[in-house]
Amino acid sequence: MADITIIGSGVMGTSIAVPALDNDHHVTLVGSPLDDDIIETMRAGEAHPKLDRPLTGKASYLRQDEMTADHLQKADVVLLGVSSAGMPWILDYLLGFGVPIARLMMITKGLDVTEDGGVRTLPPRLYETLAPLGDPPAVVGVGGPCIARELSNRAPTAVVFGHDNRDAAVYCQRLFETEYYHIRPNADLIGVEANAPLKNFMAIGVAATWSRYPDRFKDDARQMNPTAAVFEQAVHELALLTQWLGGNPMTAMRLAGAGDLFVTVNAGRNSRLGLRLGAGDSVLEALNGPLAGETVEGVDTGRALGPGLYKAWQKDPVLAAEMPLTRALLNAILHEQSFSFDMGAYWHRGD
Amino acid sequence: MADITIIGSGVMGTSIAVPALDNDHHVTLVGSPLDDDIIETMRAGEAHPKLDRPLTGKASYLRQDEMTADHLQKADVVLLGVSSAGMPWILDYLLGFGVPIARLMMITKGLDVTEDGGVRTLPPRLYETLAPLGDPPAVVGVGGPCIARELSNRAPTAVVFGHDNRDAAVYCQRLFETEYYHIRPNADLIGVEANAPLKNFMAIGVAATWSRYPDRFKDDARQMNPTAAVFEQAVHELALLTQWLGGNPMTAMRLAGAGDLFVTVNAGRNSRLGLRLGAGDSVLEALNGPLAGETVEGVDTGRALGPGLYKAWQKDPVLAAEMPLTRALLNAILHEQSFSFDMGAYWHRGD
Repeated sequence: MADITIIGSGVMGTSIAVPALDNDHHVTLVGSPLDDDIIETMRAGEAHPKLDRPLTGKASYLRQDEMTADHLQKADVVLLGVSSAGMPWILDYLLGFGVPIARLMMITKGLDVTEDGGVRTLPPRLYETLAPLGDPPAVVGVGGPCIARELSNRAPTAVVFGHDNRDAAVYCQRLFETEYYHIRPNADLIGVEANAPLKNFMAIGVAATWSRYPDRFKDDARQMNPTAAVFEQAVHELALLTQWLGGNPMTAMRLAGAGDLFVTVNAGRNSRLGLRLGAGDSVLEALNGPLAGETVEGVDTGRALGPGLYKAWQKDPVLAAEMPLTRALLNAILHEQSFSFDMGAYWHRGD
Repeated sequence: MADITIIGSGVMGTSIAVPALDNDHHVTLVGSPLDDDIIETMRAGEAHPKLDRPLTGKASYLRQDEMTADHLQKADVVLLGVSSAGMPWILDYLLGFGVPIARLMMITKGLDVTEDGGVRTLPPRLYETLAPLGDPPAVVGVGGPCIARELSNRAPTAVVFGHDNRDAAVYCQRLFETEYYHIRPNADLIGVEANAPLKNFMAIGVAATWSRYPDRFKDDARQMNPTAAVFEQAVHELALLTQWLGGNPMTAMRLAGAGDLFVTVNAGRNSRLGLRLGAGDSVLEALNGPLAGETVEGVDTGRALGPGLYKAWQKDPVLAAEMPLTRALLNAILHEQSFSFDMGAYWHRGD
């Protein structure tokens, strides 16, 4: 029986505890500073406010101010479960305990903007920031199509464990693999981590295409041809951006990219934003209107990606020409232009 | 202005005339023996019974018994527009005129079962059968995500022109490319032709997953995690089958494979059959019940694929192990087993 400490009790941090608890491991769920009420609720035996059922098994709950170095010390795995906005907090929080961490799993996703305005995935940021704790932890990044609520309800789910250390990945796989939670190790940690935020960004463009071309001859019918074309273009640009960020482009063609994009265009805030853009809203109109108060991670991805990518495009015009969808999304996110993807500009390139 | 003769006036044969007519080319639409009424309807200026609007531009219409060798002779492009069931008829029909054909486009899709029970794509069958007419025609196979009705309504659509002759492909691209119909030539004719029938087959399994795992906590809600996992597996097996049939596996990752699968799981008879299988029907129960009288091309694909593929799997167990979804679909189609895909059997292979 292993000890797993999950920091961040949002829907994903709470849901990923389910397979580990079903495997009879002990899970300590630690709330972020925003999670005190959620922790008290679950501690009282109730379900997470956004999930359908309480956790079962050897689960315990801590407010962030209740965790001690002891808890961290005996953890076989520490899992970063906060949203990307929580990254600075969680790194300070871990540093504060001064305890070295052997195995770090992460469901926290995002891109890291460096001081020179460059962009990279999160693992290098982790290695740097946690260096004072001693040897860098083995990092296992969870990717692939996984809606938290479905996982918490034990829907068959297939995910990727990107890793920088195969032993650590196989160890974590053994803790979490169940008859409904299927795990594939992938040595391309950077590619898996790149696709998680990038697919949110791309999903905005695919969803925008749903609403941009309504079927004029049927009520409430979505036309498929335009969206299928943009979906495929999105996967192609995911592969190019994955490679640009130092990952393996093939990772984008599999679960972590195309598979996760398939889910993301069909559900969630990124796709809701896209539907608004396709209907003619600007990004700010949508974020101040129908999506007011919500975090749309694909927008944050665009903001992180833009400056570094524009520089790269200046150096490499061919790379820029291969990414018309990315360009259209950056125009909408960074320059308040209405979303407009010129399919023709791309398709004329031939094969 | 070019002369294009389309043989077969189904929805696809009729819809692909639209971009050519918008480019001011002359299109002769020739009905199959089943199309006499449709030809008379369109000749009277009305819309195809299954489309929303009449054709505009330089279109003329012929019943199959009205076509002459002259018509064929002056055609710059002859387009095979019948369903796969119409292949034997259309080849006899063309042979009957004894006129050599320079450029042959095909939207007719399917697999060809050889006398020894092997399976191959349609182009080799074309070359063989049409040999008596002289030099083999340059073949351009149309693939990618295209719902005919949407194309006829000028929805933005991106397709692949697989070809065995780049000049012919570029010539055809010039005839059909419009601001809404985007064409990418692809030298992998065999891969494009393989994916067209194969994606119908795979779509049955993806759609079955929609209905197999309903959301127990929400009415009429589809769970995304299982279907996203099977979608990605389907693309992976499309790539393996494409390669097995002599095509380029990458073709399956792009428009002709993943892109077309994205459409096919969301619409059409293959996905309707899949939804029944996921709900527990056997293939025959579904074909004799809700889908009675309809052609489900993915089933024909499975029947053509099975015998040759089982032989290949006996010789190559690794190939078999990589295709659990294909195996589950063949079990349902050829052996009347209930559809059951063991995601776990696959995912344990690691990366």
